[in-house]
Formats: sequence, structure tokens, C-alpha cells
Amino acid sequence: MITLGVDLGGTNLRAARVAEDGALGAVRRVRLADRSPESVVSTLRTLVDEVLDQDGLTHADVLGLAVGTAGQIHGATGRVVVGPNLGWREVPFAAMLEEALPFRAIVVNDLSAAVWGERVVGAGAGADDVLMIAVGSGVGSGIVSGGHLLDGASGVAGEFGHTKVVPSGRLCGCGEHGCLEAYAGGHNLAARAAERIRELGHEGPLAEYHRAGRLDVEALHAAYLAGDAVAKELLGHAAELLGVASANYVTLLNPARLVLGGGVLLGCPEVARGLRAGIERYTSRSALADLEIALAALGDDAGLIGAGLLAYELLR
Amino acid sequence: MITLGVDLGGTNLRAARVAEDGALGAVRRVRLADRSPESVVSTLRTLVDEVLDQDGLTHADVLGLAVGTAGQIHGATGRVVVGPNLGWREVPFAAMLEEALPFRAIVVNDLSAAVWGERVVGAGAGADDVLMIAVGSGVGSGIVSGGHLLDGASGVAGEFGHTKVVPSGRLCGCGEHGCLEAYAGGHNLAARAAERIRELGHEGPLAEYHRAGRLDVEALHAAYLAGDAVAKELLGHAAELLGVASANYVTLLNPARLVLGGGVLLGCPEVARGLRAGIERYTSRSALADLEIALAALGDDAGLIGAGLLAYELLR
Repeated sequence: MITLGVDLGGTNLRAARVAEDGALGAVRRVRLADRSPESVVSTLRTLVDEVLDQDGLTHADVLGLAVGTAGQIHGATGRVVVGPNLGWREVPFAAMLEEALPFRAIVVNDLSAAVWGERVVGAGAGADDVLMIAVGSGVGSGIVSGGHLLDGASGVAGEFGHTKVVPSGRLCGCGEHGCLEAYAGGHNLAARAAERIRELGHEGPLAEYHRAGRLDVEALHAAYLAGDAVAKELLGHAAELLGVASANYVTLLNPARLVLGGGVLLGCPEVARGLRAGIERYTSRSALADLEIALAALGDDAGLIGAGLLAYELLR
Repeated sequence: MITLGVDLGGTNLRAARVAEDGALGAVRRVRLADRSPESVVSTLRTLVDEVLDQDGLTHADVLGLAVGTAGQIHGATGRVVVGPNLGWREVPFAAMLEEALPFRAIVVNDLSAAVWGERVVGAGAGADDVLMIAVGSGVGSGIVSGGHLLDGASGVAGEFGHTKVVPSGRLCGCGEHGCLEAYAGGHNLAARAAERIRELGHEGPLAEYHRAGRLDVEALHAAYLAGDAVAKELLGHAAELLGVASANYVTLLNPARLVLGGGVLLGCPEVARGLRAGIERYTSRSALADLEIALAALGDDAGLIGAGLLAYELLR
């Protein structure tokens, strides 16, 4: 028996056969033309058949399917309470999948899937207490504690990006003020860079990227390396806030392994370095003593692999 | 079969018979004359026999014993890695107890015992995700998530008092700077009050308590009610820092129930009110939506009751 791991984003849907050791078999990806739950179910049905065909398998070979997707998920029922990238609210997605497919289905938060993948066969392998912090376009986390995935009472545990680091500070995309994501998430970093360039009448590498319409995290990092003052200010501030917040997170959860992922941390080594320095400096000595920090090892496949491995864990 | 709950403090040792519904039978308390592990084991042996005698029971009626004590505990082996109030380091306490007594023994952190008690028969009853924040002479917490006690990779999860709220701020008793406990713990509040009185040449209710040698949390609260400016400044600042830190804690763990305990929160309603206001204001909307906040219901017995109930959970 094999499982199917599914990564459901706002733009793409990916499905893969996942072996028990985390190895990926056939992987298929499709761009979502229609994000309605009914359409996604039907697209996924086709994708599943393509994956199975490609590996010469049938429905009877499938133990079950697990979907990782961004948002607030009610784990026990697989209901997507809020799926911001899909515009979903209260979608009984696991039940819809089980109606359309002849095997069991579970739905989890995308970072829960990713941390589970990293924990079993990635940078957290061998540890029962793994915290994954991902800083990409947004800021999030996934928690494994005592060998259990931690999802909280209503499926929104680990919303690291929405902890408040500057009370009453900058407005975040979530509608609240002073969130970590408003200072350290990639979308917000780019938006703040554009603001600062305007405010200061700033000239230099970053302003050139801005004029060329290419003001993203990659541009910020290149400008940082070229000595641009605004890039230094913004990435430095992000790293400082991430450092204290991550240190406090480690103090509270006492993980054995902290896994760092996401485009900002993997693409801007200076930010990752600043975050690590903050952890060294601000984590309680007792929680720091047994902590190992590692970069995420599974890249974009963490969610696919983790979902497939979770299906083995939860459906058997 | 019954269990025995034990509360091992720096000054007193208490043992009680605990029924499966959390009801306490005989309770015995003794002042610790000698804090060496060997002496505590021998004192506890006597105490256990007194408790059993009083209720007409024998060793054969005991399923097991559980001890709650402050510090860093390695849960799987019951080793006290650091017991600050006892001056212990690396004491294999559960093993010593099992050698001296004819039944099994477990050792857990005191706030883990307390949150378990509150979760089963106290203010957290009925919930699988309970966070307990205790602000007394120190600041700490206990976490139940998904029905599991969360203790972290090395037994120091939940060190809420040692999260950093003023990076590089006031020196804490733990040797680090800017810890929440350095601003909101009872010992530190009293010490800061004495400092502020000296710095400002402050006169008023608080200064009178200081001269009388009675500058404690009770005095701070009385002075606050009498309009003392320093008392207002210190309790207000403590409540503000507690509010943001607690809100972030709730955002990360998404508990169904937040239980507030400890002498500062129970004795100074203004601080508890400020903490609640901070939670309302700074917690992510999604984690706040399903949160209930309650005052601790079991008082000083939470640790005793929780330890006894944990023994049922873990030793059967």
C-alpha cells in the first residue's frame, strides 16, 4: 500500500505517490483554473488517476490521501475553516474527497505537513520535538511535540507570523497591527522597501530594482549585498525581530531541532544569520542547551512528502 | 487502587491520597529540615505511611505516586536535571523513590502537575487544549495540547517567565536579561518597588510599607488601590508586558482554555484585568475566537491533585 501526498496552493495543485520511506514516486502538477471546492475535487481526481497510471498502480493500492493547504483546518474532520489563498470558508474538504474517491482522506495545514515531512525524513529526522519556522512571502511555523503534530483547539496553532512584535505597529495583511509577518514576510518587505524609497527619495541599487518593477526579496538581498542602506535597514530589522520572537518560541516549546525554511531565510543568509544570533542571545539557557538548528532539507517537496507520510501515520 | 500526589517545594513537602475523580483523601505536610535527596526520600516514605494509615490503606492499595516539583525534569526517567529551590542537579529522583517504596513513581514539573489538575477537574475541565499561566513569586506556565502534557525535548517547555520581553533589559534571577519574570514576578516587583522608592525619593503608601519591612505583592496591591504612583507604574507595566506575551503565547498554541493562576494574578485583579485586555487586543483573531479564559479553580492543591491524576493517566 502507498499513500498520496497533495499540496494544494492558491495557484497550483500537486499530487504525488509517497513511499513509506518518504521517497516520491510519480508527481503531477496542474495549474488551478477554477478554485471552487467542487472543481478542485474533480481536478484532483484526475491528477490522482494520472499519478497511479504513471506508476502502474490502481485505487486498490492506495492506503489513503492527505492534503496540505494554507489556512485554518479542523484536523479531526478535515474541514477547511478558512483557506485564504483559495477563498474558502467552511469547506468539508476531506468529506468531499472521500465521497469522490474510494479511499480515506485527511486535510492538514501546509506547514503541519511540511514539519511532519522534515521531522520524519528531513532536517528534523530522529527528533520527537521539532519546530519549523518558515519565512517566505508569509511567516509561519509547524510544531511536532512529543512525536505529535500540534494543531491547537481550532487548527490555528503555530501562527508565528501573527504574533505581535511591535504592539500597535504596521498594518498586516491579516487586518491586525504589529504582526511579525508585517516586518519579516517577503510581501511586506517588498512593500516596505517601496514605501521607504518614496519616503526618503532614496537612490541606489534598490531604487533601480523598484523602477524596473522587480522589487522582491531577491532584489532586496542583491541590494543588501551591494551595500544599499534601505535594504540593510529592512533586512536588519526583520532579522532582529525574527531573532527575539524565535528565541521566545524556542523557550516556550523546548524543541530538540529547529528547522528554518522559506525563501527569505534560505535566500537571504544574512537574515538567517541574524535569526540564529537572536536565538543564541535570547533563548533561555536551559532550552538552548539541547537545541540544534538546521536548514530545511526537503525544499518545495516538504509539504507533499509530509502529507504522504502523515497519511501512513494517521490512516493505518 | 488509589494514587498519591506529592508537592515538593523548597520549604514544604506535602503528600495526599488522590481519588480518580480528583478528590483529596488524607493530606499530610511537613517542613523540610534537610533538602538532600536521600533525606527527602526518607521523609516522603514516612509521610506516605501516615497518609495511608490515616485512610486505613496499605501499600498494596497504591497504584503509584507522582511528584510535582519546580525545575527542569526529564519526564521519561523522572530525573530532576535542575531543581533550583532544592539545590538539586541530576538527581534520579523517580528511581530513588521506586527503590524506597514498593510502587511506581513519576516526577514532573510543578506547573505540569498543576495544569493537569486544572485540565481534568478544575478550570480547564472538558478541554483537550489548556494553557495555564501562573504569575506568583515567579512566572511560569503549563501546557496540555491535544490531551497530552507538553514538556519539550529536555523538560523545560513552558518557561514563560524567561521569554524576553525587554531585550537586554533588567537582570532576572536566572542570570539572563529582560525576562518577563524580571518585570512581572512577585519577587522582582517587590525589588523594583524598593529601587523606585530609593531612586525617586518616593513618599506615599508604598514607602510606608517599605519602611515597615513589608514590601510584598500584597503591599503593592494595597498601595495601588490607595493611588500610589509607583505601585501604579509597576503593576501597570507588568500587566502590559504580560498582556502582549500571553497574547502571543495563545496565538502560538491555540488553546481552548487559558487558566490564570498564582498570587499576583489572583491577588491583584488589576493585573489580571490588564492581562485579559492585552489578550483581547493582541491575540490573532482566529486563536481568540475559540478561547475561554478562567481563573484557576484548585488553588494550592492544583499540584497535589494534578500529580495524583497524572499517576492514574501514566501508570495504568
